[in-house]
Amino acid sequence: MCDVCGCGDQRKVSIEVHASLLADNDHEAAHLREHFVEAGVLAVNVMGYPGAGKTALLEATARALAGRLRIAAVSGDLATELDAERLARAGIPSATITTGSACHLDASMVHDALHDATLSAAVRACDVFFIENVGNLVCPAIYDLGQGANVVLLSVTEGVDKPLKYPVMFRKADLVVLTKVDLLPHLPGVSAGVMRENVARVMPSARVIETSAVTGAGVDELVAWLDARRPRPVQPR
Amino acid sequence: MCDVCGCGDQRKVSIEVHASLLADNDHEAAHLREHFVEAGVLAVNVMGYPGAGKTALLEATARALAGRLRIAAVSGDLATELDAERLARAGIPSATITTGSACHLDASMVHDALHDATLSAAVRACDVFFIENVGNLVCPAIYDLGQGANVVLLSVTEGVDKPLKYPVMFRKADLVVLTKVDLLPHLPGVSAGVMRENVARVMPSARVIETSAVTGAGVDELVAWLDARRPRPVQPR
Repeated sequence: MCDVCGCGDQRKVSIEVHASLLADNDHEAAHLREHFVEAGVLAVNVMGYPGAGKTALLEATARALAGRLRIAAVSGDLATELDAERLARAGIPSATITTGSACHLDASMVHDALHDATLSAAVRACDVFFIENVGNLVCPAIYDLGQGANVVLLSVTEGVDKPLKYPVMFRKADLVVLTKVDLLPHLPGVSAGVMRENVARVMPSARVIETSAVTGAGVDELVAWLDARRPRPVQPR
Repeated sequence: MCDVCGCGDQRKVSIEVHASLLADNDHEAAHLREHFVEAGVLAVNVMGYPGAGKTALLEATARALAGRLRIAAVSGDLATELDAERLARAGIPSATITTGSACHLDASMVHDALHDATLSAAVRACDVFFIENVGNLVCPAIYDLGQGANVVLLSVTEGVDKPLKYPVMFRKADLVVLTKVDLLPHLPGVSAGVMRENVARVMPSARVIETSAVTGAGVDELVAWLDARRPRPVQPR
């Protein structure tokens, strides 16, 4: 363990410091979770390496929804607002969390972003709130953001062995989305079936949906999965 | 800054702790660097996200070399020895550094790996020592490993905007290797020219080589680049 981003080396910082940092984060995440559930909002922590297709999947989801579910998003990025601009063009109320050189989002970053009145109103009014994490298959797994679901993206272009090599992320996943499946015919060494098998070796209750943001394949299945996981509101909206 | 893996949030741990950790690492890295230079070995820190093609590029380099340069490698991985097994099959003397949940290599991990007599002898006898970092486009940039060159891989399958969104890594790069260029005909939205332009916007002295581990394109250019950067031995080998 790196003991701060929680992904490093236990030699680096005392276990006490690490435990305290994660406890603070968990406390703030629990607070966020209460708000999300109370408002009947499914918060989804969307994780994957750079280029796995996180933003493209949200764009495709917005296209497929056609108003069936209301969505909102924040997008974590070291630099630029490129993703949030793409989400806005796709009609998704959204904001950027600029992390500078940070390798992950934490609960306080999400909490701070929700201090913006416009975003906060959009989140309270939505059914699914996507928290698009920093592109990284290691560190984001450690930090609870108050989400109701962890979704991990894996592009078929990046080889079949990634679940085995980066198991931490998959152990905490509720859903793995294979992306870019339209490219499979051009990837002779890659099999979606083998990727599914490798996911099943590290993910406790393996659930995989195969998607393409280009063709729209699998997006309806994803929407149904999200819809089924929405919390029931405990107060009138 | 996350202040330990160096990639997080400055609110997390005191600046003193962070500075001390990086100073310890820099000290150990300087020690490694002296040994590498003394032995006439070019140590190369190979970085990129999971699936960028780091191992495939080393395999292709070994095939292209046909004995012209002697190489050795270590491969940093959270779990599994899959990469080191591939490197061994490609005829590259190599070892795995298993990081558990760590998101990056540091100098002490490389130093510890070199305590293995077989690997150490292979490194002393080689011309180029590849240090294949953990697949991550954020955290590995912070830690000096005693390398003589930073090489960052970017696959053309993962979109053209990555240099802009993950600039920290590219600011410290000596070379960017575009990988999987054989797939460009199947990626209508992707242009190697635009990727080069985006690299040039964040990399101080932009140097880009386009490669394919499938066709072998660009590998000779990479080998020439490596050969030209080798340190001159300061003592008989």
